[in-house]
Amino acid sequence: MPTDIEIAQAATLRKILPLAQERLGLHEDELVPYGHYKAKLSLPALRRLEKLPVRGKLVLVTAITPTPPGEGKTTTTVGLGDGLNRIGANTIICLREPSLGPCFGMKGGAAGGGHAQVVPMEDINLHFTGDFHAIALANNLLAAMLDNHIHHGNVLGLDVRRISWRRVVDMNDRALRQITAALGGPGNGYPREDGFDIVVASEVMAILCLADSLADLKRRLGQIIVGYTADKKPVTARDLQADGAMAALLKDAIQPNLVQTLEGHPAFVHGGPFANIAHGCNSVMATRTALRLADYVVTEAGFGADLGAEKFIDIKCRKSGLQPSCAVLVATIRALKHHGQGADGLEALRLGLPNLERHVRNVQQHYRLPAIVSINRFDGDTPEEIALVEAACERLGVRCVLASHWAQGGAGAEDLARAVVQACEGSAPPLGLLYEDSDSLAAKLNAVATRIYGADGVDVEPAAAKQLEEVTALGYGHLPVCIAKTQYSFSSDAKRLGAPEGHRLRVRELRLHAGAEFVTAICGDIMTMPGLPRSPAAERIGLDDGGRIHGLF
Amino acid sequence: MPTDIEIAQAATLRKILPLAQERLGLHEDELVPYGHYKAKLSLPALRRLEKLPVRGKLVLVTAITPTPPGEGKTTTTVGLGDGLNRIGANTIICLREPSLGPCFGMKGGAAGGGHAQVVPMEDINLHFTGDFHAIALANNLLAAMLDNHIHHGNVLGLDVRRISWRRVVDMNDRALRQITAALGGPGNGYPREDGFDIVVASEVMAILCLADSLADLKRRLGQIIVGYTADKKPVTARDLQADGAMAALLKDAIQPNLVQTLEGHPAFVHGGPFANIAHGCNSVMATRTALRLADYVVTEAGFGADLGAEKFIDIKCRKSGLQPSCAVLVATIRALKHHGQGADGLEALRLGLPNLERHVRNVQQHYRLPAIVSINRFDGDTPEEIALVEAACERLGVRCVLASHWAQGGAGAEDLARAVVQACEGSAPPLGLLYEDSDSLAAKLNAVATRIYGADGVDVEPAAAKQLEEVTALGYGHLPVCIAKTQYSFSSDAKRLGAPEGHRLRVRELRLHAGAEFVTAICGDIMTMPGLPRSPAAERIGLDDGGRIHGLF
Repeated sequence: MPTDIEIAQAATLRKILPLAQERLGLHEDELVPYGHYKAKLSLPALRRLEKLPVRGKLVLVTAITPTPPGEGKTTTTVGLGDGLNRIGANTIICLREPSLGPCFGMKGGAAGGGHAQVVPMEDINLHFTGDFHAIALANNLLAAMLDNHIHHGNVLGLDVRRISWRRVVDMNDRALRQITAALGGPGNGYPREDGFDIVVASEVMAILCLADSLADLKRRLGQIIVGYTADKKPVTARDLQADGAMAALLKDAIQPNLVQTLEGHPAFVHGGPFANIAHGCNSVMATRTALRLADYVVTEAGFGADLGAEKFIDIKCRKSGLQPSCAVLVATIRALKHHGQGADGLEALRLGLPNLERHVRNVQQHYRLPAIVSINRFDGDTPEEIALVEAACERLGVRCVLASHWAQGGAGAEDLARAVVQACEGSAPPLGLLYEDSDSLAAKLNAVATRIYGADGVDVEPAAAKQLEEVTALGYGHLPVCIAKTQYSFSSDAKRLGAPEGHRLRVRELRLHAGAEFVTAICGDIMTMPGLPRSPAAERIGLDDGGRIHGLF
Repeated sequence: MPTDIEIAQAATLRKILPLAQERLGLHEDELVPYGHYKAKLSLPALRRLEKLPVRGKLVLVTAITPTPPGEGKTTTTVGLGDGLNRIGANTIICLREPSLGPCFGMKGGAAGGGHAQVVPMEDINLHFTGDFHAIALANNLLAAMLDNHIHHGNVLGLDVRRISWRRVVDMNDRALRQITAALGGPGNGYPREDGFDIVVASEVMAILCLADSLADLKRRLGQIIVGYTADKKPVTARDLQADGAMAALLKDAIQPNLVQTLEGHPAFVHGGPFANIAHGCNSVMATRTALRLADYVVTEAGFGADLGAEKFIDIKCRKSGLQPSCAVLVATIRALKHHGQGADGLEALRLGLPNLERHVRNVQQHYRLPAIVSINRFDGDTPEEIALVEAACERLGVRCVLASHWAQGGAGAEDLARAVVQACEGSAPPLGLLYEDSDSLAAKLNAVATRIYGADGVDVEPAAAKQLEEVTALGYGHLPVCIAKTQYSFSSDAKRLGAPEGHRLRVRELRLHAGAEFVTAICGDIMTMPGLPRSPAAERIGLDDGGRIHGLF
């Protein structure tokens, strides 16, 4: 069986400029090529398109609670897009950009899989068009200017014990989680505790993905709070005069990237905040632009529907005015059996079904979206297993479709495509927000925990409770909450599979993201800097003398 | 007077693909475009060109000991290239890529100045084609895999007290010079001392610039020594199985970048090792390729001729077989007066002339190159001052040419161009190596210090003396030396201007770069991570709502 990279490398790609011209009506000069198969939409093109009416229906692809290899959310997004295009529905898909961290760690690339991939796969998985590098540098420039300001007299009066801005690198590097910086004497600044996050956890990443224009990007960058004075007054990037140079570094990164699927259909791949530690959606600018260029726009939100879909609705849609028309919930028999922990065969599957059921109910009742369950088929799935899932879906009143795009490309997702077209008929439902802006931060956390996670309530640890008070006192209580927790459970404990009950969400730390305009609640033992496994995927990646990469998967 | 960025933004650029086709005979598919005005030469194109005969003469642009703003070496390289093209000599220039560190710090951009610039100036100064980002990640992937290896059982037996591999960031960030990493408990690894260098000081940067092929790049990456076991055996990137993934990250970065000068002539801008802390030359692959495509190739080597030219000859040419035909030594009246410290007017200039004289003698006698002194004219230079420098050159038997490309573009460098054509007549002189591979490392340091720097000798501090013994015992005594010292003096003390005598070169630390294949001797108080000044240039950089950058200079 060929690997993802072998399938991708065997594909014949169309040049991106003619593809964009033919499919999107974009003139060559409206695109900024990066090689012959990747391009960015230029700022003037974005301004022209912004004035066109919205013509597309927005379809959200989300998933049940995943296992570590993932259940095929990106793969389904690609397959569904190709399926829709095959049945004559003009479609653009909108994906997130992969992070190098998991690419070199365990999970491998994140550009789909099998015959449902975006290409050029190696480029997209490695540096792509440099967006993550630009975000990392904008983040780290702010950090350098911050320590430099303190070193040169600290006119703003920053308290080195109250610096909240961390540095970032696009790497799983546990040794950088917690460091002591500025050691070595007066020439190196004032020693302080510091640490690195992975780039996808940077507030700059969230800002890039939520900004709806260059002006909005600049406004948000200026609002970033880097730390506090001894009397707890916030100090911003604007106070440090760092926002202008940060925006200059992001000039190209803010432009959406255009590539193609293996079947030659257009795909926007732009922005990549993690969905456990950030809001997990591709950029607002890419999604909005796509809605002006196609009849259907299929997008994904990271990890399970408890994280990705909730943040898609309560953060991305709330602030941008986007209106999804339906949601596709991706499930695999493998993952459902995993949720029936301990049992075997059909019994495991039966015990795992409550996970699917809770996600379906959340989508239908809380997010108020027409839902479709899409079973991402594996070769080993038996007819009995499939029948069991179908029966469960019937009881829930939700349509269940088998999809085999991984093996067959878009042809394997035509049924799913037809189901989606049907679900999108009629006008988009009113947005199912879980809470109002005016609710307190505690009430917002409680709404997500009890209604989506099935928790009994929220336990805010003393340090976090104090932060909650401080954030509210500073006037940020109106912001939405972004819950950072494990992606492997509805709860904040990765070991509680299925549809756990009686659990409480344990909030360990609050981080105010005044630029991204949300408040992150860090729950359980989730980390903002992953580590590499014992035998990282990087050990098996190589390059032949002709420049061809192997071992990336 | 318009600023550099204003001049650059007012220029009308030619699209790079037709320019490359017309001027270099490269087919569109042999180039990888990055936007419409930047491109990389593809690996297949490099392989095709490698087989062509060398047709070009190689001209080295170097300089007297500079002042902090620089004396216009890059500007002269650009102006001379345009001047040569104007007088009908088919010329390509080969420059180094700018680093973001100085760009946001004090010096500003490094893409030339005035009417002698390479464009698009903002892109080249900021992310360009992502080469530095790729180098940073390859460097930091190795670091992450190293700490990860130790964390997961340390089968290779690395001694955490003897790790030599440091992390990097493309930023002036003094707070990262010296850190304690892996704090916070067993989950974060084994605490140890660590630090960050600026990307241009990374051994990966040196390797990319010295490799003559992808195969050579891979070989060198594998040879990198990251640290030692408790019994002082070296551990390499190959031992950690990191070299394959590092090469994959550098797949695009190894391809030379093509841009244009303000006058529309081709320029390779590729690789950017600093010349004080590294070997300071653009890539061997760019230079070799250019020599197959043009009759003249003009290249620069960083900082004064004591650093740049010495390393160009003793490291880059020694290993690659490149043969320069002549050297242009850039001088400014301003810098010469600066070297006549304390005095005024003509007297300062007279006192500063020995700096020029020593550099001229070095180029002629030690590097054995036909030399031309090029005075980079400033508006305030008086006829008396110019006459004084011309008289000094006449005494030295070296041609002195006035060049005003900064104000006039290539037209201002036509005299210089004609002088260069004349100097290049006849065959290239035999390479003036300062020492033999078989000399001891101590003898090599002594040769550079006494013959080029005018020092009485070398003082190797005890710790460095031990390292020198160890490096030799490990079998690396045959490598060339790369002296890292201040660029502001012939000596290792930045305050000793002019042509100091009686000084001794103080070697503080030796770093073995088994992949780059040289041994760096760190002298005086030079640092491998600069800091930002009190008011960094970044504070004045911004982006308007249309996406235009301002304040970059």
